[in-house]
Order: sequence, then structure tokens, then C-alpha cells
Amino acid sequence: MATLQQLADLVGGQIQGDGDIEIARVTPIDQAQKGDITFVSNPKYLPLLKQCQASAVIVTPGIDSPEMNLLLCANPYLAFAKILTYLQVKDETVSGILPGAIVAESAEIDDTVTIHAGAVIGERVKIGAGTVIHSGAVLYADVKVGKDCLIHAQSIVREECRIGDRVILQPSAVIGSDGFGFAPDGQSYYKIPQVGIVVLEDDVEIGACTCIDRAALGETIIRRGTKLDNLVQIGHNVQVGEDCIIVSQGGIAGSSKVGNHCTFGGQAAIAGHLKIGDNVMIGGRGGATGNVESNQILSGLPLMPHKQWLRATMTLPKLPEMRKEMKDLKKRLEEIETLLKES
Amino acid sequence: MATLQQLADLVGGQIQGDGDIEIARVTPIDQAQKGDITFVSNPKYLPLLKQCQASAVIVTPGIDSPEMNLLLCANPYLAFAKILTYLQVKDETVSGILPGAIVAESAEIDDTVTIHAGAVIGERVKIGAGTVIHSGAVLYADVKVGKDCLIHAQSIVREECRIGDRVILQPSAVIGSDGFGFAPDGQSYYKIPQVGIVVLEDDVEIGACTCIDRAALGETIIRRGTKLDNLVQIGHNVQVGEDCIIVSQGGIAGSSKVGNHCTFGGQAAIAGHLKIGDNVMIGGRGGATGNVESNQILSGLPLMPHKQWLRATMTLPKLPEMRKEMKDLKKRLEEIETLLKES
Amino acid sequence: MATLQQLADLVGGQIQGDGDIEIARVTPIDQAQKGDITFVSNPKYLPLLKQCQASAVIVTPGIDSPEMNLLLCANPYLAFAKILTYLQVKDETVSGILPGAIVAESAEIDDTVTIHAGAVIGERVKIGAGTVIHSGAVLYADVKVGKDCLIHAQSIVREECRIGDRVILQPSAVIGSDGFGFAPDGQSYYKIPQVGIVVLEDDVEIGACTCIDRAALGETIIRRGTKLDNLVQIGHNVQVGEDCIIVSQGGIAGSSKVGNHCTFGGQAAIAGHLKIGDNVMIGGRGGATGNVESNQILSGLPLMPHKQWLRATMTLPKLPEMRKEMKDLKKRLEEIETLLKES
Repeated sequence: MATLQQLADLVGGQIQGDGDIEIARVTPIDQAQKGDITFVSNPKYLPLLKQCQASAVIVTPGIDSPEMNLLLCANPYLAFAKILTYLQVKDETVSGILPGAIVAESAEIDDTVTIHAGAVIGERVKIGAGTVIHSGAVLYADVKVGKDCLIHAQSIVREECRIGDRVILQPSAVIGSDGFGFAPDGQSYYKIPQVGIVVLEDDVEIGACTCIDRAALGETIIRRGTKLDNLVQIGHNVQVGEDCIIVSQGGIAGSSKVGNHCTFGGQAAIAGHLKIGDNVMIGGRGGATGNVESNQILSGLPLMPHKQWLRATMTLPKLPEMRKEMKDLKKRLEEIETLLKES
Repeated sequence: MATLQQLADLVGGQIQGDGDIEIARVTPIDQAQKGDITFVSNPKYLPLLKQCQASAVIVTPGIDSPEMNLLLCANPYLAFAKILTYLQVKDETVSGILPGAIVAESAEIDDTVTIHAGAVIGERVKIGAGTVIHSGAVLYADVKVGKDCLIHAQSIVREECRIGDRVILQPSAVIGSDGFGFAPDGQSYYKIPQVGIVVLEDDVEIGACTCIDRAALGETIIRRGTKLDNLVQIGHNVQVGEDCIIVSQGGIAGSSKVGNHCTFGGQAAIAGHLKIGDNVMIGGRGGATGNVESNQILSGLPLMPHKQWLRATMTLPKLPEMRKEMKDLKKRLEEIETLLKES
Repeated sequence: MATLQQLADLVGGQIQGDGDIEIARVTPIDQAQKGDITFVSNPKYLPLLKQCQASAVIVTPGIDSPEMNLLLCANPYLAFAKILTYLQVKDETVSGILPGAIVAESAEIDDTVTIHAGAVIGERVKIGAGTVIHSGAVLYADVKVGKDCLIHAQSIVREECRIGDRVILQPSAVIGSDGFGFAPDGQSYYKIPQVGIVVLEDDVEIGACTCIDRAALGETIIRRGTKLDNLVQIGHNVQVGEDCIIVSQGGIAGSSKVGNHCTFGGQAAIAGHLKIGDNVMIGGRGGATGNVESNQILSGLPLMPHKQWLRATMTLPKLPEMRKEMKDLKKRLEEIETLLKES
């Protein structure tokens, strides 16, 4: 619960209306009731303001709606996120090692850490202040986890991997599984020990069932602020830069390096040993088979400029018709050629 | 063990032959022995009947095979499934909270529930009669699970999510992971709290390592009878209708709504914020990038009628040849044009 | 720690230089220091030899570098893998059932097996000598695991499945989840009990979050020496031959049979009920929709020879231009036809 004024201070916004009104919840505009704050970030939803029952609405400066209490700020979507975080009911605070948690004696656990029942913390693991480890999570020996991390149920961090501050692992995330490396030995394959680690820098989030393989030698690195969705595959020795977004079911094969602020759509894939620049956007199911320069929006397999891909894929269904037409053209051309030869 | 007559009563079929014969097992037609029942749902396998050693065979009415005991019914495949279920050796019944299970005192667990060693049941969780929770499954606080559910090892249901009756979660299914929502804040991303839930209605089955994200606000819903295969991704605020089939490695991005009785093949994908009608079939690796009307069979990226896609992809390998041919046509056309200009 | 001579004996190589020099670690060529051994398997990295600080370098016979200690062998990459395995720091040996592990009384566990805290071993499970079971792994009733296996955290092996010797399960691998089988019953689906099992033969490795479904009836089989990467899906009743490689996010649908020594790239898919021969390579995201003969390198959907696919996909971006050009050709052809008719 907060007053509209408190929320405006929180997000650095201006109020048009009653700053003393009490706000309890954040709701979508079509479900908002008294006590709720809602938001309009897309102008096409502005007409919904008229019949809206919310106590206040977050909008961009310039909007006018005399009957409503407005919270004006440049980025209503970001303000919505910050207010939602603020009003969110906090987890029951139960810090400490709860009954049923299994923690090695040699582990160094800050007093403010919460470890839930059924979590297993290995030898010499270090966990920083404020971190919460949920049931069934397993940290192998010599793992380091920073401050204020949230490690969900069944997440696994294998030996020696290092996790920064404010990192979130969704359920069943796998950090530090062996890289997929085998040396052909005649017809069979000999396993190459994967003795490197994974480093997740600060503010990284890893989705459910996403797998990040440890390096063969050295480090697989996900840099500060990067967010990976569910079921993503990151191969060994990959480096992903800062503030990247990798959507669900995408994959990056071994040893590829991705720059900063890249966004890859769902099921997109990067082949191995490639270099992807900064600010590269790859559309859903795009596939990089070669290096990619910075500052491009690409799609398709092979990658091409997104607009070109849109045109190419729109032509795709017409391929059989084109083929037929080409045969027809060829026949007519041959008739003319025959005619001209005879004349 | 059952007599053929008992099985005929079970599936509403007719017997041709000896109803008193004892049936112990269901086996494929090429491995069937005395005491077995087998089935022929595809007419092309009918010739195998002659050398078949089974005690009885499930076939459609109209089949005649004097030497065999036949169980005639309209849908042999369905009858096979029902008889297999009936004859299946039941799990050892061990209801109760087994040693090594960790159950919060505030949880409400029916007496007929089985909770295996190593499962963790959070505060205020409610579990209905007959449900079985396997080792390592984790139910966060305030989860509700209905009757006769089967929750396999390492499945996770996060806080407040609701599961209906007769729901099956395969191992490592993840229900209620955070939706992938971030508000851009300059170069970085600010996490939008995902405060909604997931609702799985009655008779839903969720595959191994399949992830269903909780709603940002409100509910992600999988409706009655829908079956999801392994490694499927369902984004936040998605709604999937009744009796749908989503095959392995498919994905539905955030806020899309799928109607009833849809079937999506392996690795098929639905982009975000779309509306898919009823009775839509999408072939393996198909990709919906726009809304889809009901009652269609589609494939490809972009989606097109399945038959058209078959033709288009058959033309694909001929593209380089077409391009060469087109250059040839162009050259010949230019020669004619030159010739005609000169004449 | 070992002398260069000891390592040469290990891999069957020849020394050029000082065999008594002590080697402690294996490192990449650009990071190698005194005490390290490194390797050059790709001739393009040979120039790096000059400034290399390593105590020794593994190279192919014929290379000459008088200042360096060389270990000459035909397959430097394989030698590197074997030396890395030899020098690797061994896991702390802690065999036995560790506190916090839950093992059924009826299980038969060899004395040399290690079972970590939080692992759950079901009734009548048998585990062979030297096998290590990590925290949170769950073996259901009647599972058999061979010798010297490594079962990582949260891996699940469901009831009755059989695992050979030296098998590795990466974290959260799922062995024996139900196959995806349903019989249509009017509008709804009736679950077909999946009463078969999964068999993993010797020397198989299964990646993190990879799911292998149990057979409906009979066995799903992964044969000796085959390696599956992370997030792979194997449907019920599939058989994969010996020494195959299936890269991340690939999938094989139900009842398909794959021969020996096949390699499938990332996200590649095999439809159901197909037969794939021996020595078949399928490129990343290739998709088999029909049977495939042995000894081929294929890509694309539909599959075509890899070189043809490269040409076809290079033509893809030019499709819109081709279509435009064809319209132009058609127009010009019509003009000529009109002209010729008039003349």
C-alpha cells in the first residue's frame, strides 16, 4: 500500500490529480478497480481510459484526462514495473538454514542467506548476503554465489562455477554441465574432460531448464545484465556480452562470442566459433552460420536483413507457381526462337 | 489377468471365438504369445494375423479369421489403450507421507495421498485424494493440486499455481517459472515482477522438462484435456484451449491464445500476442507469425496450407537451377530483342 | 604431474626434446606457461608455436621446432584429451552412502558406489561398482545401473530402465519419461500407458535436460558409445545405433531407427517411424521427413545433399528479385509475341 505521491517519487513522475489517494495493487487496464493503479504505454489503449475504474493511471506526459488521477512519466512501462516491484507482497522472510537443508560444514554461508528444505550445498561453497536458495537446488563443491541472488528449486550449479550478485536462476536451470566435446578415436569417441567453469556476472537471469555448459578449458561467460529465457542452450567456452536477451529455445554453439546488447528471438541459433558484434538483433528461428557485424537486424537461415527475409519468405509459397511460369516462358521463348530461325 | 469376455465388456466390443480364454498381457502383433492380446488398427498389418500366436486380437468389425479369437470394436487402438490400462501392473500402493518427505505443517494433504522421500511440500499447499507425488518434486507455498494427479520426480510447481484433477506432470516439468518480461531502462533491462499464476485444468498432461511460465498479471491457462510433450515452452499469459496436442520442443510466446482441439507438430512455434482458432493443425517446425483462423492444416514459416508447403519445399532444392535458367532465358530474350530492333 | 616421457607413453607418441620435463597442466596455446602442455591440431595455429611459453606441445609428426619440447602423435586432439584426463584432479573419493542420501533397503548397492546427500534410490535398484550418484538424482524402483557410471544432480531414471557401464548422465537428464501416446476418443484423448522401458548401453552420455521417453511396449534403445548433447528429445520406441552424435536441441520422433555412426547437428529433427542408415550426417536444423540411405551428408527441410542445400539457401534471399525479374521477362516476351503476331 502506498499513496500516489509516494509512487510518483519512486519513479520520478508528476501527478495530475490527487496525490493522497491510496494504491494497493497494479492491474491491467480492463480489470482495474478502486485502489488499483494501471498503465497505458501504447496510445491505442488510451480510449479505454474513459471507462477505467482504477484509482490512478500511469501515462506519458501530454495526456489529459481531467476525471482521472494521472501519474505522468516518460516511460510508463518501466514505471509500471518499478511500482509492481514496490507493491509486491514480499516472500515470508525466513532467513537461515531451514530444517531439511543439507549444508557442508566447510561452506561459508552469510547469516542472512535462506536455504530451504531439500537444498544441498557442497564443500567450500560461498554464498553472499541476502541470497535465497530454494528446495532441491544443488550447489556442487567450490561454487561461489554472490549477494541477493535467487536460486529456484532444482537449479544446479556444478563445481567451481561463479555467480555474481542479484543473479536469478529459474527452476531447473543447469549451470556448468559438461561441454559436448569428444575426440574421434577410430569409430568411437573419447570424452574430452571439461575442466573449465561457467561465470555468470551480476544481474544475469537464467530461465527454467536452460543449460550453460562449462568450458573445456577456461570459462564460459554470461556478462552483466544479460537475460536468458527458458530451454536455451549455451555451449562450452561461449561468451555472451552485457545486456543481451536470448529468447526461449535459442542456442549458441561452442566457442562463439556475442557482443553487448544483442537480442535473439525464440529458437534462434548461432553456430560454433563465430563472432557476433554489438546491437545485433536476430529474429525468431534465425540462424547465424558466419560472423555478424554490429548494428544489424537479421532473420532467416542463412541470415539476411530482416526486411529482405520478410520479402523472401512471402515469395516462398509462390515458388511452385514461379517454376511453372518459368517453364511456360521457356516454351514460348523457344517457339519465338524457332519462328525467327525459320524466317 | 482377465477373460476375453471381461475385456470385451470393458471396451464395449463383440467377441468372435472363445470368451473364457485368459488374457494376461498386451503385446505387439509380431511378439505376441499365448496369454497375450494384440491389436490391428492399420489394415496393412492384417496379413500378420495368420502367423500370430496371440490368444486374442482386437480388430474392427468385418474382419474374419476363424482360427483366431477376435475382439471386434470400432476403434481398436482405443480398445488397446483401455485394455493396457486395465491389465497394467499397478504401482505398489504405499499411500501416506513416506520417510524422507518434507511437508509443511500448514499443508492440507488428503489421507490417500502418497508423498515419496525427498519431495518438498510448501506452506498451505492443498493436495486432493489419490494424488501421488514422487521423490524430489517441489510444490512451493499456496499451491493447489486436485485429485488423482501424478507428479513425477523433480517436477516443480511454483507459488500459488493451481492444478486440476487427474493431471500428470512428467519428470522435471516446471510450472510457474517467471515469465520473460523486462522493461528497457536505458541500455539495461529492469525485471517486471511476474505476479500471476499458472492454471492447469483437469486431465492435462505436461511433458518432461516442459516449462510453463506464470502470468505477469493474471493467469497462464492450459485447459482441460490438453497434452504437452517434452521440452515445450509456454510463455506468460498464454491460453491453450481444450484437447490440444503440442508435440516436443514446440513453443508458444507470451499472451497468445490457442483455441480448442489444435495440434502442433514438433518444434512448431507460435509468436507472441496471436490468436489461433479451433481445430488448427500446424506441421512440425511450422511457425505462426500472424493470427490463424479455425479449421486449417498449415505448415512452414510463414504458415501456408500444408499441401502448398509440400510443393514449395519440393521446389526449394531446384532454386539454384531455376536461377541459372532464368539468366539463360534473359540472355536469349535479349538476343531476340536485339535481333528484332536491328531488323 | 607427470614427465613428458610418461605422457608420451600414455598416448603412444614420440618425444623431440627433453622427456624428463615435468608437466602439471593442459592449457590453450595462447595461455600456456611453464609447466603446461598445449597442442596444435589445426596447422593454421602453428605460427603461434614461436611465442609459446609451454613446457611442451603436442603436434603431428613432421613438425619441427628446435626450441620447443614436442610430443609427436598422429592425432594430437585425441592425445590432448587423454593427457587432460590423466592430469585432471580427481574427485575427492568419498565412496559409500553419504548422510542425507535415501536408499531403499531392498536396493543392491556395491560397496564402492558413492551416493551423495539428497539422492533417492528406489526399491530393488541395482548399482554397479564405482558408480557415483550425485545429490538430488532419483532412481525409481527396479532400475539397473552398471559400473563406473556418473549420474549427475537431479537426473531421473524411471522405473525398470537399464543403464550400462561407464554411462554419464548430465544434470537433469530424464530417462524413461512416458512416451507421448494418446488414442483419440471422440474429441478427447485417452492416455496409452507406456509400459516399456529405456535401455542405455555402455559408454553412452546423455546431456543436461535431455529427455528419453520409455517405450509404449518394448524398449527405447541408445546403443554403445552414442553421445547426446543437452535438451535433446528422444521419442518412445526410438532406436539410436552405436557411436552416434546428436547435438543440442535435436529431436527424434517415436519409433524411428537410426543406424551407427550418425551425426545430427543442433536442432535437427527426425520425424516418426523413419529408418536412417549408417554414417548419415544431418546438418544443423536439418529435418528428415522420409527414410535416409547410409553414407550421406544432408541438410535442410526437406533434406537434400548438403552442398545443394548451401546453394539453395544462398539463392533464397534473391527470391523476391527473381520474381520481379520473371515478371519483367514475361512482359518483354509478351511484347515480342505481340510484335511478331502483328508483323
